[in-house]
Amino acid sequence: MQDDAPGFADEDLSRDAFLGGKLLLLQPKSGYRAGVDPVLLAASVPARSGESVLDLGCGAGAAALCLGTRVPGLRLTGLELQPAYADLAGRNAAGAGLQMEVMTGNLASPPPALRQLAFHHVIANPPYFDPAASMAAADPGRGSGRAEAVPLSAWIDCAARRLRPRGYLHVIQRIQRLPDLLAAATAARLGAIEVLPLAARTGRAPEHVIFRARKDGRTPFRLHFPLILHHGEKHLSDSDDYSPIISGVLRDGKILPWPGRKML
Amino acid sequence: MQDDAPGFADEDLSRDAFLGGKLLLLQPKSGYRAGVDPVLLAASVPARSGESVLDLGCGAGAAALCLGTRVPGLRLTGLELQPAYADLAGRNAAGAGLQMEVMTGNLASPPPALRQLAFHHVIANPPYFDPAASMAAADPGRGSGRAEAVPLSAWIDCAARRLRPRGYLHVIQRIQRLPDLLAAATAARLGAIEVLPLAARTGRAPEHVIFRARKDGRTPFRLHFPLILHHGEKHLSDSDDYSPIISGVLRDGKILPWPGRKML
Repeated sequence: MQDDAPGFADEDLSRDAFLGGKLLLLQPKSGYRAGVDPVLLAASVPARSGESVLDLGCGAGAAALCLGTRVPGLRLTGLELQPAYADLAGRNAAGAGLQMEVMTGNLASPPPALRQLAFHHVIANPPYFDPAASMAAADPGRGSGRAEAVPLSAWIDCAARRLRPRGYLHVIQRIQRLPDLLAAATAARLGAIEVLPLAARTGRAPEHVIFRARKDGRTPFRLHFPLILHHGEKHLSDSDDYSPIISGVLRDGKILPWPGRKML
Repeated sequence: MQDDAPGFADEDLSRDAFLGGKLLLLQPKSGYRAGVDPVLLAASVPARSGESVLDLGCGAGAAALCLGTRVPGLRLTGLELQPAYADLAGRNAAGAGLQMEVMTGNLASPPPALRQLAFHHVIANPPYFDPAASMAAADPGRGSGRAEAVPLSAWIDCAARRLRPRGYLHVIQRIQRLPDLLAAATAARLGAIEVLPLAARTGRAPEHVIFRARKDGRTPFRLHFPLILHHGEKHLSDSDDYSPIISGVLRDGKILPWPGRKML
């Protein structure tokens, strides 16, 4: 371990089960830890064996490795700003028996090696909180993971540049950033935008969104009916009461199906 | 009737009931005719007695007069490009016993008299179809009503300029135009944007949207859970099977309540 690229000490890591135990990931006990969001993101990507996937800001690799676990034979690449997380992503890929090239670098000025590549899919779970609107995080890892060091538009722009023609971008974000996502995607000349809102329960305002766009896409914008995460009106029991689709994603590693195309 | 401002001949008009018969409107038998959309738009506006309302592109006055019927004591103004429709809006206001000043003019370069006014509320039901993407309409009235002679951004810009500080804009549109609405509202420095998708049935992709924004608004963007128009999975009987909220709006002239503000 180099001094300028410190890794996490083993005693600071936990080994966490994803996809019902199909995937085990080392994560720092404190700092940014993957939750449900990168799992849902990965499940929403219609990747097929043999295709290439870039995970922007891959952290410890949760999204890319969930996707690689569901779809065998993907060529996975991750870009991560923080060397300690990039190191962890590489260890997690090896532990899962998946091929994943992890590059350390800033997506606002990507490494030259990355700039020569184009991908069938780019996925990203960018920070949710605008630094101007949130408290400064005490932990630097947590801070980079959750507060917005690089503007959201730079994420979308980097993704668009790294996509092959007709390639797909999938991003998970808080619903408040939907206008920024739409503006950035339009500026980056992405099209065929589809928005899948994620609502905790039926009738509740969606709090998150999975955002899909395609390079050179021409299909008109679509807003889907919200995907409902939990059954029932409110939390009544000790169980997590996930809806069948969500439970299938989180526990069985299934795909998250997008609603069908309806004639208008 | 002047030659350059032809009105409709009486035999070309029908008298149609809105709000369960509370409001009767003369409309041309052919050409643009108000449907459910301006009624829902008017119902979504939280106007109070004594406030001022501008209906941009008011047509025969459906939206403004529905609102005026629900809320007594509003000061209503309409701007309409086509003299025949402006004339009809004036006749419809008189027939309903409502005060409404109807101006004839283009919202892209509003009449000087309008430019001196500011309103508590601006409402608009702009054309749904982009002329480039739709067939040319045979009827000129229908064409101006439904195809996009003036870009959507000009509607939003005109509305923003005519709003008082903290004033509300409400627009009903097809869901495909949501990215354009957001971009135009952002460019016009409107904020506190709320989007209420309208879905025909539970689980179906919303096809329309009621878009709310406020001048000088600062609240973060909100996407609400869709408002469901019809009960049940599909159309099963001869009845229109409207949901209770929608039925209350269309038949009883009730307000369309916006979902409450939830702490995030």
